[in-house]
Amino acid sequence: MVQRVAKGTKNAILRLLYENRSHYLSGEKISQLLDCSRTAVWKHIRELTAEGYIIEALQKSGYRLISAPDGVNEAAILTGLETKQLGHTIIFSERMDSTQKKALELADDGAEEGTLVVTNEQVAGRGRLGHHWQSTRGTNISMSLILRPRLPIEKTPQLTLLTAVAVADAIEEVSGLYCRIKWPNDILYENAKLVGILTELQAESSFVKAVIIGIGINGNTSPESFSGELAGKASSLRAITGDHYDLSHLIQVFLKRFETLYDRYLDKGFLAIKPLWVRRAASLGKKIKVRQPGGHVLSGKAIGINDDGVLLLEKEQGEITRVYSADIEWN
Amino acid sequence: MVQRVAKGTKNAILRLLYENRSHYLSGEKISQLLDCSRTAVWKHIRELTAEGYIIEALQKSGYRLISAPDGVNEAAILTGLETKQLGHTIIFSERMDSTQKKALELADDGAEEGTLVVTNEQVAGRGRLGHHWQSTRGTNISMSLILRPRLPIEKTPQLTLLTAVAVADAIEEVSGLYCRIKWPNDILYENAKLVGILTELQAESSFVKAVIIGIGINGNTSPESFSGELAGKASSLRAITGDHYDLSHLIQVFLKRFETLYDRYLDKGFLAIKPLWVRRAASLGKKIKVRQPGGHVLSGKAIGINDDGVLLLEKEQGEITRVYSADIEWN
Repeated sequence: MVQRVAKGTKNAILRLLYENRSHYLSGEKISQLLDCSRTAVWKHIRELTAEGYIIEALQKSGYRLISAPDGVNEAAILTGLETKQLGHTIIFSERMDSTQKKALELADDGAEEGTLVVTNEQVAGRGRLGHHWQSTRGTNISMSLILRPRLPIEKTPQLTLLTAVAVADAIEEVSGLYCRIKWPNDILYENAKLVGILTELQAESSFVKAVIIGIGINGNTSPESFSGELAGKASSLRAITGDHYDLSHLIQVFLKRFETLYDRYLDKGFLAIKPLWVRRAASLGKKIKVRQPGGHVLSGKAIGINDDGVLLLEKEQGEITRVYSADIEWN
Repeated sequence: MVQRVAKGTKNAILRLLYENRSHYLSGEKISQLLDCSRTAVWKHIRELTAEGYIIEALQKSGYRLISAPDGVNEAAILTGLETKQLGHTIIFSERMDSTQKKALELADDGAEEGTLVVTNEQVAGRGRLGHHWQSTRGTNISMSLILRPRLPIEKTPQLTLLTAVAVADAIEEVSGLYCRIKWPNDILYENAKLVGILTELQAESSFVKAVIIGIGINGNTSPESFSGELAGKASSLRAITGDHYDLSHLIQVFLKRFETLYDRYLDKGFLAIKPLWVRRAASLGKKIKVRQPGGHVLSGKAIGINDDGVLLLEKEQGEITRVYSADIEWN
């Protein structure tokens, strides 16, 4: 119990420091605001410093946050977050097996819509169709968002496409990079994958209980990570632009953009999202190979998505097939 | 590790005793078959006796199982099970929080199709739409079946209706009772509920990963349990017929019947199941109230289910509405 309170106070101090980065905050002021002793404040500041936060301390003025260690943290995501609901509850820890697995458990236990699970290091990240998703400590975004949409079960895959649009838009806003989307949801910059999205559903018969959207973004991964086999196939924002990104800020921008699109989608349906997805579609018009779960492979031309977000594949003989879930590839 | 081996051997001895109930099996024979010492055999027999198994031991002939304690066990379900695949892997323990929760976890970790999770006592049983499901130690069946059907996501609710038919058929086979089904899946005998079914889905975008079917059957619950508030609303096989049922056998009969219907359904679709469901439908033609998740209530006449298993409700003005997930009630 003492542990919980202590952790909560440290987090609260960090939030205050984030909210007051432009000026100094005295130890006395912090202890008043959080109703704790000045010794406690000092101890927590010392802990934060040990974790890699650089905090300026002036004897007469107080404390000021100069910089945070690589990676994201709860206080940084919450400070300045402009959403109405998404991300207001954050489950953060430095290290997790998988944000997706954690979010599935939390959703099953009743976590509310908009709960965000996020970590700096995933030990056993989950990818689509049983693939593994790799990430490096503190350089990537690994997060899972819990949603509870009132939707017919068969419409929930559309949220995957919506998410891809929101991530691509957020990347464009913070980095200026214009990314394309490989159906259904990989985000590419010139054929190199920057983002993976995994949408999972919990339903009771036909009633949708929760949709959990897992997102991995290669943010500050070093360029050297994409040599050898991965060269040209995967990349990171940093590897492309040379810049270093504030990943907590990128999460904020994503949540805000996602919320706007999500509200619009729940109100107007997929037709309100479709043109945004199509504009970024990388695969349309291309000859592609479609590998379905179970190993069945189809070939043909990707001619578009229908009004439900289902991929339309034109086979050699001109016959058009709908593709629901698959990995696609092209040369 | 020693614990695991020991438990496995005890289970194996129990299986041998079940398979040889018509004659005596010597301690030497058992120790040979299971490659363990005669002392180990004797110790496990003593443990089984302590758990309530009545095992006859004749010095010259060996051991013979006379009777088992109330409730089910893995060996009893496996002995004489006539399915091709369903129930061949059984996860049994005397007591569990919830077979459904356990099965969801196992499915997420890759458990194979047909895995059956079963217990004699559920501490926190799950019901539909967040309801609680009560059961008494050793008198009811509490089980969850893991399936991995290749189905479009929107067809999976049909498995709920299929399950209701299989359970009602199994009950009829072992008890002679002709039960009716209240849409979508409660099983009633003269308006008293005997069975609850809860179908949950794990999907990745539109790809169905697993369907977990939870089933609770009031088997040998004492008649006194259904007094007061529950009078006329719930009952058990025993309360109706006065007989005592072999619950492991009832599970076997259910699994066999379910497998037959499931194969037929995967091959021919819901139209092959629909008439079996309709024949037992309790609600059709009745004026009903429909309470949807979220609290919205509709009234009208239940006029049938469509070819996809969706309930059709005729409202006062003659307009016909489809009902996907809800609780229904009538007077």
